[in-house]
Amino acid sequence: MNTLFDEPLKVVNCGLGNFAENLQLAGGDVVNLTWQPPAMGDVEAGLALASLLRHPRVEQANQRAFEAYLAAQPVLVDVRSAAEAIPAMTQGRRILHSGPPIAWADMCGPVQGAIVGAILFEGWAANAAEAERLARDGAIELEPCHHYRCVGPMAGIISPSMPLFVVENKTNGEYAYSNFNEGLGKVLRFGANNEEVLQRLHWMKAELAGALKAAIRALGGLELKPLMAQALHMGDEIHNRNAAATGLFLKRIIPALLGCGLPLEQIQRAVAFMAGNDHFFLNLSMTACKSMLDAAAYVPFSSMVTVMARNGVNFGIRLSGTGDRWFQARANPVEGLFFPGYGVDDAAADLGDSAITETAGVGGFAMASSPAIVKFVGGTPADAIGHSRRMQSITLGGNPAFTLPSLNFAPTAAGIDARKVVDRGILPVINTGIAHKQAGVGQIGAGITTAPMPCFIEAIRALADQVDQCSGNES
Amino acid sequence: MNTLFDEPLKVVNCGLGNFAENLQLAGGDVVNLTWQPPAMGDVEAGLALASLLRHPRVEQANQRAFEAYLAAQPVLVDVRSAAEAIPAMTQGRRILHSGPPIAWADMCGPVQGAIVGAILFEGWAANAAEAERLARDGAIELEPCHHYRCVGPMAGIISPSMPLFVVENKTNGEYAYSNFNEGLGKVLRFGANNEEVLQRLHWMKAELAGALKAAIRALGGLELKPLMAQALHMGDEIHNRNAAATGLFLKRIIPALLGCGLPLEQIQRAVAFMAGNDHFFLNLSMTACKSMLDAAAYVPFSSMVTVMARNGVNFGIRLSGTGDRWFQARANPVEGLFFPGYGVDDAAADLGDSAITETAGVGGFAMASSPAIVKFVGGTPADAIGHSRRMQSITLGGNPAFTLPSLNFAPTAAGIDARKVVDRGILPVINTGIAHKQAGVGQIGAGITTAPMPCFIEAIRALADQVDQCSGNES
Repeated sequence: MNTLFDEPLKVVNCGLGNFAENLQLAGGDVVNLTWQPPAMGDVEAGLALASLLRHPRVEQANQRAFEAYLAAQPVLVDVRSAAEAIPAMTQGRRILHSGPPIAWADMCGPVQGAIVGAILFEGWAANAAEAERLARDGAIELEPCHHYRCVGPMAGIISPSMPLFVVENKTNGEYAYSNFNEGLGKVLRFGANNEEVLQRLHWMKAELAGALKAAIRALGGLELKPLMAQALHMGDEIHNRNAAATGLFLKRIIPALLGCGLPLEQIQRAVAFMAGNDHFFLNLSMTACKSMLDAAAYVPFSSMVTVMARNGVNFGIRLSGTGDRWFQARANPVEGLFFPGYGVDDAAADLGDSAITETAGVGGFAMASSPAIVKFVGGTPADAIGHSRRMQSITLGGNPAFTLPSLNFAPTAAGIDARKVVDRGILPVINTGIAHKQAGVGQIGAGITTAPMPCFIEAIRALADQVDQCSGNES
Repeated sequence: MNTLFDEPLKVVNCGLGNFAENLQLAGGDVVNLTWQPPAMGDVEAGLALASLLRHPRVEQANQRAFEAYLAAQPVLVDVRSAAEAIPAMTQGRRILHSGPPIAWADMCGPVQGAIVGAILFEGWAANAAEAERLARDGAIELEPCHHYRCVGPMAGIISPSMPLFVVENKTNGEYAYSNFNEGLGKVLRFGANNEEVLQRLHWMKAELAGALKAAIRALGGLELKPLMAQALHMGDEIHNRNAAATGLFLKRIIPALLGCGLPLEQIQRAVAFMAGNDHFFLNLSMTACKSMLDAAAYVPFSSMVTVMARNGVNFGIRLSGTGDRWFQARANPVEGLFFPGYGVDDAAADLGDSAITETAGVGGFAMASSPAIVKFVGGTPADAIGHSRRMQSITLGGNPAFTLPSLNFAPTAAGIDARKVVDRGILPVINTGIAHKQAGVGQIGAGITTAPMPCFIEAIRALADQVDQCSGNES
């Protein structure tokens, strides 16, 4: 004891930083270790977590799920209408939306506005008031995109006659789908539904879809992973920045388009539209990610996250091991940069299926590859590198197909392990656009957010029950 | 003295590292300061340098030159044949080559091969033997591109009927020119001159030139600096990596091309050619750099470097203050990565006008923006950042038009000050392709090299003479 107090004190502080700060102010030599109790101190959840950590069944399941994710080879093979691609879309009147399930009455402004637009687009109503009445009265089935292997950015609306990108995972022959990106400004995905928006949707259906279908077929399909990998070396994180990926896509698609025997005017309009929209590739990035993660889904006992999605109210996740079940919580706020004239009070809650990119290890997880994106979502290039590094502590491994130059070509962190999220209190980081809370105003900013912890805690408890039941059955 | 030897020694070593290493091995506490005598210890040059450092006339001249470089607004305005663009090209038989002046007999293999190709392309000879005889006998005027405001990569060959990009500096109305990039493989710029090469040149002249001319005019010109700035945020350094810049260029040029009323087949071939060549933008990057540096040329007393260029034997530089005079030295070897089957013995010496990019602050100077290029030229992303930082010590300032995301958007170091190069012993870094020493084999690698010190020493002595004479006249 005497020795201790005779020598200069060297203190390691664990947990709350205030203790360390006070010692530092008093001239003490302190190392501060960030730590918080697992499962945010929830004892039951902590026990559930403990039952899963290093559990051989979970470890094996995760290995299987992660390998299936790594092995996926998403190839853009076709364009089809939603009705052609998804049989359920021809039964009754059905519209798909982003995020976990939600009733019309609970939906946020932009999603309601976009659904009204889709009803008008389908000709199911003569005007917006009638369309809204149909939706409110339950005459339209409203379901998540994810229930039909689809993803859509922001409101994520897909109705039967909309054209979809068809992506095949060549490893298992399964398909994934997304709608086309409409560009910025007044667009359906932000809840706009005026004549301009509907005209564009009609043109996409009548002309762009056919042009892309012909070009994709002429190419014999387009492998998406190599294209995404290149874009990650060109400053994109392929969620909020798709400038390089869109350029690479155009470099492949335009030569094919020119050889399809289409009228020059049709090609001109298609090229002008795509070349004028740096986010055109986003929906393809999302579909490729959906395809890779669907390959990893439905592996019993796996704690790998296969879906993260937001409906503008709630954030929902799915684990591979718990199949179709959603685990939901209120979405976390977005820290970001607002366009001039807008602020946090104007913002809708976090919205869209585009967090599928982070779930697949790109987007926020690959921010180190995209220092220039901090000009859009806020922060510094050093922050961007920090995000990518931090995600390494909550993932199952690295994806060697996607490497990050500024981390000396380290593979991007991928395969979120819900156990690690709950254990370490580190939340998956997500780059995201910010929508105005009123339908149709559009994007008002962009920023960084995180998936909310309660989803993961609930998911871990469900998985622990599954493992527990199964062990019970065996014993 | 007693105090000194009683205390533990702390040593600062200045200059040769070996002394520091020995002390370190013996357990000493050493800080090693890299230092070497200015002007490589050449006393006369050192005195010349001393007369120029902080000289008000030089400082003012440099400020004027650097400001003109910064203010330049290079815009791609047209495509013209060399004969149309450069009156001298219609007088006699003239062919331009890269680097400083050099006689036929002294030229390296690739440049001789390319000149033979150009003579055949112009129809001045029926076969290669006859073409070679014409060149050897002095029947063809051979002059540097730089003497006619032109630049060309590698052999840099320009003959009268070749189409040139025409770039206008909108700030001063002056023009700069470059030929079209032919792609990789068997190409004239590496000295190949077979039928395939000539056919491609004929097609470029007959069809591609007209298509690009029409599209550029339809666009009303294309500002190059914003495009280069974007590419620097997308992993290009716009010398050895032009993938993003080429994509950005295509995104602008293709929609224009589609609206020019040209036959679809012509558009198809033009698009397929450009989309198939990730270096297509290189020649535009070079022309823009030439345009910016020409704006800074001919400012008396300025020590700013306005040209760095290699002819495959010698490296030559020009200073703004010394006008048309070349300062030459043997080119330094290239440290790099060779393609399989090739090694350093197969390599031609450093070749081409493309070091104009480094002279303008991009290329090797902007390597921090292009971590992925190290896969091509060797080294690590940290090395790339180191190169960009080191160049800050030999330049007049930063170019705010070109920012480097991984240096937290610092402007790229630009405006090489020959005084600083000689004073600090830090040589301008250059990313470069490596040509096979035999004509026509093509590129066999890529790497990093430096401009040789003797050019800068000679230039400093010449500038000191100029300043000295002028001071003499005045006094």
